[in-house]
Amino acid sequence: MKLILAVIQDKDSNRLLQALVENNFRATKLSSTGGFLKSGNTTFMIGTEEIRVERALQIIKENCKHRDQLVAPISPMGGNADSYVPYPVEVEVGGATVFVLPVEQFHQF
Amino acid sequence: MKLILAVIQDKDSNRLLQALVENNFRATKLSSTGGFLKSGNTTFMIGTEEIRVERALQIIKENCKHRDQLVAPISPMGGNADSYVPYPVEVEVGGATVFVLPVEQFHQF
Amino acid sequence: MKLILAVIQDKDSNRLLQALVENNFRATKLSSTGGFLKSGNTTFMIGTEEIRVERALQIIKENCKHRDQLVAPISPMGGNADSYVPYPVEVEVGGATVFVLPVEQFHQF
Ligand code: NI
Ligand code: NI
Ligand code: NI
Repeated sequence: MKLILAVIQDKDSNRLLQALVENNFRATKLSSTGGFLKSGNTTFMIGTEEIRVERALQIIKENCKHRDQLVAPISPMGGNADSYVPYPVEVEVGGATVFVLPVEQFHQF
Repeated sequence: MKLILAVIQDKDSNRLLQALVENNFRATKLSSTGGFLKSGNTTFMIGTEEIRVERALQIIKENCKHRDQLVAPISPMGGNADSYVPYPVEVEVGGATVFVLPVEQFHQF
Repeated sequence: MKLILAVIQDKDSNRLLQALVENNFRATKLSSTGGFLKSGNTTFMIGTEEIRVERALQIIKENCKHRDQLVAPISPMGGNADSYVPYPVEVEVGGATVFVLPVEQFHQF
């Protein structure tokens, strides 16, 4: 048994949870803030047999990995037109910091 | 020293905390949601000497173990009488998912 | 790689986070309550190379260690004058409960 702690961005949270459940992993979400990633993050706690650790890591990577996203420009409604950027902007989203911890005992009561 | 992480139902939380304190265990509650158990859960973090791990597990089991509870029927006040169930319904409550982790260093400052 | 879990008082939280960041540590804060310390606490999760564990512990100690603080008396504005204490009162603040856990795998996606 291993315990996987994954700190991910909030916006990837629902997608990751769904992918984990579809693959028969069970996860608990802990409220967390800042630090490893920019603010607005969630810590997943996933308990799994050692043989399935690689699969869990693969799912986390697929659903949370760092990528650059183009964001369409927003019209300066009543804002300062000087700061208006008339072309798409690249924004970094996603990312996951993951720890796999050894477990000495596992129980379900 | 060991670190026990126990994911339990919210409704068992106060009872467990009281039982732990009466037995001189010290616990911290982390806000958590969904996954191991149906939504509405709490994660207890309990640090303890190795020799007392069994006692802590026993307390968690006694206060959080899975059981089936009969819930009295509720009269359909202004509701759909077709969905009224005139006999007690069995509902699953409780349950705990518990990990015991090795600790390399423990400090109190 | 090691994972440091530090339960500290809320009021030391911002100071600790700033000191960790200044020293290039990365931390995630988990919402937590009661138990190890009086209520109102925060759990820091700090992942670090083994060689920097001692430095992290030193920073936690410097910013969160238990100390006694003198609190100036507050005038009984519309309160019960009988309970008014006309001299400074010693209040315990701070304190940290710290676990260092082994990590088997560490990934950043
Ligand atoms: Ni990038
Ligand atoms: Ni049952
Ligand atoms: Ni003192």
